Amino acid sequence: MIDAAFLDRLRSIVGPAGHIDAPGDMEPYVAEWRGRYRGTTPLVLRPATTRELSEVVKACWEAGVPIVPQGGNTSLVGGSIPSQDGSEVLVSLSRLNRVREIDPLNYTVTVEAGCVLQAIQEAAAEVDRLFPLSLGAEGTCQIGGNISSNAGGTMTLRYGNMRDLVLGLEVVMPDGQVWDGMRRLRKNNTGYDLKHLFIGAEGTLGIVTAAVLKLFPRPKQVETGFLAVRDPDAAIELLASLRSASGDSLSAFELMPRIAIDFALKHVAGTVDPLEESHPWYVLLEFATGSGGEAFRDTIEATLGEAMEAGLVMDAVLASSESQAKQLWFIREAIVEAQKYAGGSIKHDISIPVSCVGTFIREATEAVERTIPGARPVPFGHVGDGNIHFNVTQPEGADTESYLAQWDKLNTVVHDIVLGMDGSISAEHGIGTFKRDELKRVKSPVELELMRKVKAALDPKGLMNPGKVL
Amino acid sequence: MIDAAFLDRLRSIVGPAGHIDAPGDMEPYVAEWRGRYRGTTPLVLRPATTRELSEVVKACWEAGVPIVPQGGNTSLVGGSIPSQDGSEVLVSLSRLNRVREIDPLNYTVTVEAGCVLQAIQEAAAEVDRLFPLSLGAEGTCQIGGNISSNAGGTMTLRYGNMRDLVLGLEVVMPDGQVWDGMRRLRKNNTGYDLKHLFIGAEGTLGIVTAAVLKLFPRPKQVETGFLAVRDPDAAIELLASLRSASGDSLSAFELMPRIAIDFALKHVAGTVDPLEESHPWYVLLEFATGSGGEAFRDTIEATLGEAMEAGLVMDAVLASSESQAKQLWFIREAIVEAQKYAGGSIKHDISIPVSCVGTFIREATEAVERTIPGARPVPFGHVGDGNIHFNVTQPEGADTESYLAQWDKLNTVVHDIVLGMDGSISAEHGIGTFKRDELKRVKSPVELELMRKVKAALDPKGLMNPGKVL
Repeated sequence: MIDAAFLDRLRSIVGPAGHIDAPGDMEPYVAEWRGRYRGTTPLVLRPATTRELSEVVKACWEAGVPIVPQGGNTSLVGGSIPSQDGSEVLVSLSRLNRVREIDPLNYTVTVEAGCVLQAIQEAAAEVDRLFPLSLGAEGTCQIGGNISSNAGGTMTLRYGNMRDLVLGLEVVMPDGQVWDGMRRLRKNNTGYDLKHLFIGAEGTLGIVTAAVLKLFPRPKQVETGFLAVRDPDAAIELLASLRSASGDSLSAFELMPRIAIDFALKHVAGTVDPLEESHPWYVLLEFATGSGGEAFRDTIEATLGEAMEAGLVMDAVLASSESQAKQLWFIREAIVEAQKYAGGSIKHDISIPVSCVGTFIREATEAVERTIPGARPVPFGHVGDGNIHFNVTQPEGADTESYLAQWDKLNTVVHDIVLGMDGSISAEHGIGTFKRDELKRVKSPVELELMRKVKAALDPKGLMNPGKVL
Repeated sequence: MIDAAFLDRLRSIVGPAGHIDAPGDMEPYVAEWRGRYRGTTPLVLRPATTRELSEVVKACWEAGVPIVPQGGNTSLVGGSIPSQDGSEVLVSLSRLNRVREIDPLNYTVTVEAGCVLQAIQEAAAEVDRLFPLSLGAEGTCQIGGNISSNAGGTMTLRYGNMRDLVLGLEVVMPDGQVWDGMRRLRKNNTGYDLKHLFIGAEGTLGIVTAAVLKLFPRPKQVETGFLAVRDPDAAIELLASLRSASGDSLSAFELMPRIAIDFALKHVAGTVDPLEESHPWYVLLEFATGSGGEAFRDTIEATLGEAMEAGLVMDAVLASSESQAKQLWFIREAIVEAQKYAGGSIKHDISIPVSCVGTFIREATEAVERTIPGARPVPFGHVGDGNIHFNVTQPEGADTESYLAQWDKLNTVVHDIVLGMDGSISAEHGIGTFKRDELKRVKSPVELELMRKVKAALDPKGLMNPGKVL
């Protein structure tokens, strides 16, 4: 239990508008939207400035009180939920939500951690720039959380992960000191690149309070296509040739199996099958380019034509309007929702080398069939990055609860295939509490030791988001 | 002095082909090519495998003997030269020079640290891929050194620095353990991203022995242009609009003042003034794209036409052949050489936000005139990244030695302007021994403390490249 006088001290640092302690009001902070994780805390702090947060953290450091930092609370791995014993205070960054500066000539925007991702996208668009991070939760998630979890999403093929979009950071260290690394520079070789320590560290090394982010030109021409492909191997071959033919302007390349389309058509209103005939595998792709106009479109059509002749592509449609493009993307997004209605789903968020995608899907599908006969793999996702959401829907008519009880067993089977390809058991979503035990199983002792050394060096008292990652 | 029996033990680990100890033969390892740095060592080790290197490092760890790792020995900051007291052994990575694997579908190449940069570029080209790191020393420098110094060069505007091109690393830790982080993945959120600790750490945290590098499509169409611009502000405005118009396919954007062209024309045979009239400022630019053909060129020409009407651009030529393009690049490269013949040059390798380039050049030029009247600034370089090699040539007829004696004084003046813009005093070249004292002056205490914590955590005995960076 945290001492009541100490909690009062924290309250006095942030003032009346800066804390919440009524159980009902704390609910959105201690529970996760899917209902999978729930913790408890005596106090939610909502500091208004980096200075206030710094004072809070310093007080906690001195008192030995652990802190759970939280952004939009959209973590899929329990990364932003406090423990159940009430021993941790929760710090929400949501009031640190100013866009501090936008510099179109430098192609940068300077934001505070609590800015909602979509607000940053909009601020960039207002000055004719693109902030390319894009993911399902963009209307809710906050950039501090995106940074702390190194968010991915649909545009990483062209623009990289969150890590690649950060130029500078401001971080409150575990002892309350503020590291001002808010540089707006493309090149800076003056010692260790400290920002990369905090990006993707899930708040276990310090609390990100602000960042300088890269912007890009807004694409002048976007082409969206939906293709039926022979199989995943054909998709990967096509990916390589389209990257080359398009001047590397491919911004999305999403693989989908027929079963995913069937789920979407059945369960989500408004989805339409884009091609006349049914095929086993599909790719949704997008090019974002400056110009090139008809010539660019001709090049893409020619490359697709060659792929059809070579038997890689069975059928294809290029969107002729923005609304048609939106409809094609709607199918991709509907897949996520549709799976909920198709029964229990055991999920994997894995990555492998792009060249191993076909082999992985074959081997993992066979392994699923051996482990849980009748279970239905729905491997879809960002295969342009080698990232597959290898979700497995329960056998038709099976009991959902007893199916889901096999979660860990199936994870082990699938992850072992991933590890055989030097892949990752968490491509996008991070570790949090959810994959903490699995991390210990899959990482080498040398790597775990290195991670522990870094943690001990920066957070020797272990007060930052305890029980997450390590 | 290192114990003779211990040196014998190291010799026995690497065998006869793996060490050099005759003073004459050690010369290329202990001296720097420009003659500015010279150290001494009792033994140069050239291990043939990661395992041999691991054994060497383990033995040194146990005996408390410091190690200087070395690649192509092209450092500009003394980063690869041992100390003068003979207390350090030197480890050359040059025999670890295999291309282990190339995977065109995954767009990756797996290389050992001693691979010469140009050999990697060629290996990529053989499978119709591009490895985009490109810099003056590419025929000599080794990829391990490029990684350890986070090399930049001329293509970073489009492809990023070395850091952005690394997917996986293999590192021998200070205690001799090998960290195998050789992942070939685009996405991997499983804990701290350890590779970024070693990239740019100049060998002070461990020795990079191998890496997985990103490849890109080979550009199908390259357009090279040479423009006279009104001033640096106009160059930066043009940069922003060309990034937008070209679908962000601008791969180089180099600023040059007239004095640099004059130096090149005077001192380097074969240089030709590309434009009829003389202008105060020039830009060399390059687009690398997939296709678009004439339509792409039309777009660029239209954008340049608008810039001429707006008074930003005074004159322009787009290369009509590959040989003309080479000639334009030859001028840019001649600038570096020409400065040597124009007298003593006090150099700065700085970066600032791209939007501050004009202000920086104005303020720094005025400060130079105040500090050393008659000294001639030659600000050129990769302004697309905000990186300016702000070199200052001695006043005409001045005594070179007494001019160069003012090196530190002028550095301080220029760096103070850089710091006022939150810039970097070493954009590309790193810290080494050369800028170690200046680093302490310019970094915040919090940042220095963080760097020291990382160093102490990973290399508690301080045996890795001592006296460099920190």
